[in-house]
Amino acid sequence: MSRFFSKKYDGLVPYTAGEQPKDCDYIKLNTNESPFPLSENAKRFAKEALNKTNLYPDPDCRDLHKAISNMLGVSPDEVLATNGSDEILNFAFMAFCDKEHTAVFPNITYGFYKVFAEINGIPYEEIPLTENFEIDFRDYISINKNIFIANPNAPTGISLTLPQIEEIVKSNPDNIVVIDEAYVDFGGESCVPLIKKYDNLLVTQTFSKSRSMAGARLGFGVAAKELIQDLYKIKYSTNPYNVNSITAALGIGVLKDVETTKRNCDEIVKNREYTKSKLEKLGFSVTNSSANFLFARHNKISGFNLYEELKKRGILVRHFPKKEICDFNRITIGSIDEMRILIDTIKDILEV
Amino acid sequence: MSRFFSKKYDGLVPYTAGEQPKDCDYIKLNTNESPFPLSENAKRFAKEALNKTNLYPDPDCRDLHKAISNMLGVSPDEVLATNGSDEILNFAFMAFCDKEHTAVFPNITYGFYKVFAEINGIPYEEIPLTENFEIDFRDYISINKNIFIANPNAPTGISLTLPQIEEIVKSNPDNIVVIDEAYVDFGGESCVPLIKKYDNLLVTQTFSKSRSMAGARLGFGVAAKELIQDLYKIKYSTNPYNVNSITAALGIGVLKDVETTKRNCDEIVKNREYTKSKLEKLGFSVTNSSANFLFARHNKISGFNLYEELKKRGILVRHFPKKEICDFNRITIGSIDEMRILIDTIKDILEV
Repeated sequence: MSRFFSKKYDGLVPYTAGEQPKDCDYIKLNTNESPFPLSENAKRFAKEALNKTNLYPDPDCRDLHKAISNMLGVSPDEVLATNGSDEILNFAFMAFCDKEHTAVFPNITYGFYKVFAEINGIPYEEIPLTENFEIDFRDYISINKNIFIANPNAPTGISLTLPQIEEIVKSNPDNIVVIDEAYVDFGGESCVPLIKKYDNLLVTQTFSKSRSMAGARLGFGVAAKELIQDLYKIKYSTNPYNVNSITAALGIGVLKDVETTKRNCDEIVKNREYTKSKLEKLGFSVTNSSANFLFARHNKISGFNLYEELKKRGILVRHFPKKEICDFNRITIGSIDEMRILIDTIKDILEV
Repeated sequence: MSRFFSKKYDGLVPYTAGEQPKDCDYIKLNTNESPFPLSENAKRFAKEALNKTNLYPDPDCRDLHKAISNMLGVSPDEVLATNGSDEILNFAFMAFCDKEHTAVFPNITYGFYKVFAEINGIPYEEIPLTENFEIDFRDYISINKNIFIANPNAPTGISLTLPQIEEIVKSNPDNIVVIDEAYVDFGGESCVPLIKKYDNLLVTQTFSKSRSMAGARLGFGVAAKELIQDLYKIKYSTNPYNVNSITAALGIGVLKDVETTKRNCDEIVKNREYTKSKLEKLGFSVTNSSANFLFARHNKISGFNLYEELKKRGILVRHFPKKEICDFNRITIGSIDEMRILIDTIKDILEV
């Protein structure tokens, strides 16, 4: 830290992204990426855009917003695309939170909410999960703070139901409720239709997980037009050309490829259920995940030891040092071959 | 604006980007883009990256930072790449400015500095240009505020000299000096070498203008390692994967293509000098630009009228309504054919 760094950030601890080691070819099950590459069809759109990179992108992303809104059955002015969904989440903290409108989120969830709150100087409260690692939706009823909930939650994979989400939104009419649906495409139920009914709901999604675009960075928010206009104001005051033209074209291409996305998601769900049953047979407790990862612990080996032993053997999973969940590992669901290797490697480690 | 939008932004006026109309094929001389597409060689790198978009980018952009630092003759840990140079500029306002460390910049310059200051709640002062539309470097000596200067300045195109920049940096040792070199590749002199001597200098550059990558979004900052580490902290607290993998690959590809970039810049400089002399013959006053645009006014036609008449005839230039410069238009330098059409069209409008 230099002597020039603003004191307002004293105590700020930046987000720690999952490891991206360059030293060997790991089976990467640590950052919830898709194991499937883009279709040639989707790539064609990006290649076309490469011919016009000398021109700025459309800052209003009109074609992309049209494609996303078509998929969701909403209007284009109810959508805002961003440079990954981290950006729309940060925009939401910026636009709607301040010292009077503070934030609340579970104590075990996407670790970035806390960082967004801190960098924006927003007071926040963390509500513990139940002992089964679930969000108790009743904790958020009429809480009168801006609420950030990942649904399915990370790193547990456990979902709230649509009626539970609606109760939260309905009971906090003077606060924003942000539902982060990064993992919704693997069996969760989206609450996007509720934006027509509630003016205080912002739903965020991403192309990173189910649409093989983690590297290309594309996320978006869906909400009533007035909320989207507020978020536009933040975009136009920080980075108007936040979504580059190649990524925008790729997003449009991927959305034309509905069948590929569906097939890939189905495959992940199948592999998840296969892996879950195998892990349970090996004595793991595994949360009831509707995401593209599992969250599992074993009473014979610590979470950190299992992480280390897997890494030694060329498999990366994600271990979080936080006390409440340090017995667990979060394991991304990859291809069926990767899952078989994972199970065999765990058998080897457990000597069973 | 919704009832949820934070009151802290009362009075915030977002940046107005240049028009990107979709209604007809304009000759676009309004947003300082390059008229040249990417080379096939550079595109090959992006096409390769399209095969791996399912994986997250390297958040530390190691290969890209190495390529940029090689070009500049600095170390990779003295470089930080961002999603366009707007992002590194915003990071600088966030990291180094606060209520005690306020900002100063010219009253006529890149309009975004003011917006960055406002959205971050930073008090700022604007220093008038001289009557010749120049920055008087003496105004910034020992000013004891964080200084933001575009060099060459926009929209005038006029440059400070390297010794003048050094005087500013040297005389403000307890403040950050940000030199925004977005337009330096068209005849300006970069102050990057000064980062080895001064720990308070941050230089920003972009791939948008001279490297035909406006659509792909790539900017970067260069500074002493400690300043770069501060900026990393902001990046990792807002958007760790801010540079997507396709853009990073494209940047590396373009940097291998030194000859193409040089040839394109030489061509722009030649076309600029051609256009300047033609405009002067038609009675325009034209500032002494070392950028890829000219800033010109005529005493027979108002700036706004000329803008409108050109637009009617299919040519877009940029007019700024600000009182001090509303007589001018900023004209991007395009291909020689575009410049000839521009001159002929202006002759037609002036009826000469």
